[in-house]
Amino acid sequence: MAGEFELIRRYFRPPTRHTLLAGGDDAALIVPQTAHELALSTDLLVGGQHFFPDMDPHRLGRKAAAVNLSDMAAMGATPRWVLLGLTLPDPPLESWVAAFSQGFREALGAHDVDWIGGDTTAGPLALAVTIIGEVPDGQALRRSGAHAGEDVWVSGTLGDAALGLDWRLGRCPNLAPAARDFALERFECPTPRVALGQALRALASAAIDISDGLLADLGHLLDASGVGAQLELARIPTSAAQPSGPADPDWQRRVLQGGEDYELCFTAPAARRSELEALGRAGEVALTRIGRVTAVPDERCMQDERGLSVSVSWRGYDHFAGAS
Amino acid sequence: MAGEFELIRRYFRPPTRHTLLAGGDDAALIVPQTAHELALSTDLLVGGQHFFPDMDPHRLGRKAAAVNLSDMAAMGATPRWVLLGLTLPDPPLESWVAAFSQGFREALGAHDVDWIGGDTTAGPLALAVTIIGEVPDGQALRRSGAHAGEDVWVSGTLGDAALGLDWRLGRCPNLAPAARDFALERFECPTPRVALGQALRALASAAIDISDGLLADLGHLLDASGVGAQLELARIPTSAAQPSGPADPDWQRRVLQGGEDYELCFTAPAARRSELEALGRAGEVALTRIGRVTAVPDERCMQDERGLSVSVSWRGYDHFAGAS
Repeated sequence: MAGEFELIRRYFRPPTRHTLLAGGDDAALIVPQTAHELALSTDLLVGGQHFFPDMDPHRLGRKAAAVNLSDMAAMGATPRWVLLGLTLPDPPLESWVAAFSQGFREALGAHDVDWIGGDTTAGPLALAVTIIGEVPDGQALRRSGAHAGEDVWVSGTLGDAALGLDWRLGRCPNLAPAARDFALERFECPTPRVALGQALRALASAAIDISDGLLADLGHLLDASGVGAQLELARIPTSAAQPSGPADPDWQRRVLQGGEDYELCFTAPAARRSELEALGRAGEVALTRIGRVTAVPDERCMQDERGLSVSVSWRGYDHFAGAS
Repeated sequence: MAGEFELIRRYFRPPTRHTLLAGGDDAALIVPQTAHELALSTDLLVGGQHFFPDMDPHRLGRKAAAVNLSDMAAMGATPRWVLLGLTLPDPPLESWVAAFSQGFREALGAHDVDWIGGDTTAGPLALAVTIIGEVPDGQALRRSGAHAGEDVWVSGTLGDAALGLDWRLGRCPNLAPAARDFALERFECPTPRVALGQALRALASAAIDISDGLLADLGHLLDASGVGAQLELARIPTSAAQPSGPADPDWQRRVLQGGEDYELCFTAPAARRSELEALGRAGEVALTRIGRVTAVPDERCMQDERGLSVSVSWRGYDHFAGAS
């Protein structure tokens, strides 16, 4: 196996398209656009904690890129540059590194993101990805912009990734093959809603991506905005892969608390409904209105079809406290 | 112990001074200066690999900041923003987190750097720090700018950090207490040469910080510039803490191959000698001319006082291959 420097040179210095200096120096150099703010985010993915250590490395590379691209989507930013910190067992398997870097590059390339640098070292398998995006001055989508009376929306379908995880853990062995494959794909290779995020800059008041579960992440948005929400259980969008319905506690756990779908949850004035409906029809992913924002800061209400309150937990996954 | 979100809120969201949005959203937002490039670097620090897991957390926080500030110094950049990815054993010790974050904040605060975000999760103790700095357009110090005939310079003294590590490993038990304390301080709390790096923008042709050892890091600079070098052993600056001289293999290992001093090694035209000597006298750290750049790309020559070649290894530490 080649040494560290050779390994990095061979796989971790792909060509860049809009970067002044990438790799091989003490820092990378970029030239940000004028009249734009920069959005920056760092996400950790730890083997055994965030992914199965035996996960296919090509898929892991795609997922590592996707979860960070999703952060840019949630800000309405155009993702532009990435740095990767990678610790991996000594000696590293060259085939693993090759497949991982290919998946990572493919997912970034689909959004014209330059991989500009990072660090590689021996240690327990873990990834630290820092992504940098650009957003026109003052147009970033924050969590804190929601107002009472606005609608709550989500993209795509929820609970698919949690279903894929359930299957991997042997919790739903009788899942049909087509549903299983779909759910595993959603779990291992989520699709970051990058184009949607940028389109929402003109339409949404606040946004967040769903990494910890709908209710937990929407809760963060509501907390940041100082508002409440009433959601309608029957409106929550799910895929045909879900083997049960809203009455099933497992359905609720997957769809309402399950993380890693990386769909966007956002709020928008009612005046934007027709534009958002058109965007959902024309765009890459469906958009569904699931409730409304209320003026009561602590209100976290889920209603059934009769308008009665359904008892569900609005708390998410805490990497130290466990599911809570 | 508080959960993840509470932990992050309490210790990892210090006030910022030049940041639009920090922490608590999907990304941080910054507004870069016009007519400046951004320098970006990610460094990993893995417990048991880069630091002793029982290291005093306040010192670890200082060191994590320092090694990243040093990358900005080596580019001639003004460090401005930092993101921290931290994995730590579950459950985390609040006293550890408090001390670590205080040390990290102090080291950043000394250079007016904003801690704008990051990620925290359970896992083996490891840090991923991403630092972002600004440098006026076209003025960044790259590794690739050295030319034949120029001088090779270093800041400060070399081998101190390796001496501190040697003491920690029981390799020099008879070290005098004052020398031990000095070497340990240099090993655990290196001083990033931030002001020097910025001053060198107008004087140096190429620069690198010494993290892997003088000869290995200078070798990277020479490789990037396509040049060679002849160094003079008697000119290599060391502190009074070194218990032996150049004839001792341990001295050579510490001073020439020992990493983590985080001094700057740089090249500059001979016409800059008097300005650099004045900067060394007036600035925070001494500057020493240790040799010259040659036109022979592969030349890696160390000479003794008689001008005879001394056999030394120019290779550095490879995190996968080990010292090589």
